[in-house]
Amino acid sequence: MSEADMRKPVVVLVRPQLGENIGKAARAMLNFGLTELRLVEPRDGWPNPSAGPAAAGADIVLERARVYASTAEAVADCAHVYATTVRKRGVTKPVVTPEEAAREMAGNVGRSAFLFGPERSGLETDDVALARAILTVPINPDFGSLNLAQAVILCAYEWSKHETLVQPTQEDLLPPAPQDELEGLIDHLDRLLEPKGYFLPESRAEATRRTLRGVLTKPGWNHLEVRTLRGVLSSLQREPKP
Amino acid sequence: MSEADMRKPVVVLVRPQLGENIGKAARAMLNFGLTELRLVEPRDGWPNPSAGPAAAGADIVLERARVYASTAEAVADCAHVYATTVRKRGVTKPVVTPEEAAREMAGNVGRSAFLFGPERSGLETDDVALARAILTVPINPDFGSLNLAQAVILCAYEWSKHETLVQPTQEDLLPPAPQDELEGLIDHLDRLLEPKGYFLPESRAEATRRTLRGVLTKPGWNHLEVRTLRGVLSSLQREPKP
Repeated sequence: MSEADMRKPVVVLVRPQLGENIGKAARAMLNFGLTELRLVEPRDGWPNPSAGPAAAGADIVLERARVYASTAEAVADCAHVYATTVRKRGVTKPVVTPEEAAREMAGNVGRSAFLFGPERSGLETDDVALARAILTVPINPDFGSLNLAQAVILCAYEWSKHETLVQPTQEDLLPPAPQDELEGLIDHLDRLLEPKGYFLPESRAEATRRTLRGVLTKPGWNHLEVRTLRGVLSSLQREPKP
Repeated sequence: MSEADMRKPVVVLVRPQLGENIGKAARAMLNFGLTELRLVEPRDGWPNPSAGPAAAGADIVLERARVYASTAEAVADCAHVYATTVRKRGVTKPVVTPEEAAREMAGNVGRSAFLFGPERSGLETDDVALARAILTVPINPDFGSLNLAQAVILCAYEWSKHETLVQPTQEDLLPPAPQDELEGLIDHLDRLLEPKGYFLPESRAEATRRTLRGVLTKPGWNHLEVRTLRGVLSSLQREPKP
């Protein structure tokens, strides 16, 4: 296993019920680059024919999934175990958000794991006891209905932020045009407006020019955008085309 | 509508296909406190009997959902529109992550909206053109398979992080004008340019309009600024003053 893979947290599904949900969890994981799935006593055994279709192509995660007889065995090699729960039940462990857990994982030495409980009941006290921290997603107090795959995707998503996976790049975003190009645009518009009486009365002319300049300075148009607008102004100066 | 509700972004599903996915999106929203769903031309009409069961109790979101005939109408009252896309397609708008969009929304004055495209195809270029920014979830480059509800939940989740820590923003900073005022400006300019032959040749007209729209959408001009520019255009239409 590569060093990069060792830094990725393991996703442990404890006693998952539906194969479909295992598939959805795999899909959620792979979207954000997580590949190691561990299953503790899956209710319907493993492999499960319902998992594949729900994984929507994340087959590699399912193929590599390993089955364990207990939660303790599933996390035996993990140094940092986070137990996801909806409710806090008189536990005295630190409670963290997915964001905080991801930040900790990024700095951790040794393998990390996210533990997820069965669909309806969630993790049992003995499973939670294995964890170093409780991970709780802050949720609408009047409507908490996060399913297994949704919980997995939020954790995987937060983790991925600390990987330099893919940043949406903006190399195609140009800087604002040099000031003289903007001045050229403002002058051009001024020359068009002057004969139309736009700046009248004369006593208001200065304030009107300032207002207009403010509007045109705000966008930070780039070179190409300024050129487009110069084209617009030149076009407005022309006689109508037949 | 309460002030708190006004601060919440609107979720706009453009031409959604399956009722089930609309229900799942509603569930994802309500988990993180979002309640306003807008549907643009839902393929199978509205209401859709498949939506309710998939919403898992988020009925209030479905009951309040409103249907629009076009994306432009659905965001007409929104000052900050974020178009979610997977791929960048030669767009020159700013590209932000869900995290960055959420941070911006928390500081924004005026209503914000997340735009989501149809399940398979995603938003069309004309829908994206309405937006001030592109929202892209950084994802595994080898496996991008984020479904509609997953994209919605990540956006709603990020938004919810800022809910409790919203800073009152500078009151003297006006929000961008609602989208319909901007549309009025664009239409006005279009009417001036058309007879001048600006959009010729006809084969280039659509691309030219899109470029111009991009330039005018970028600034996020407020109500007063749009009014100033309408005045400029009206003035340019006039005959010269002696």
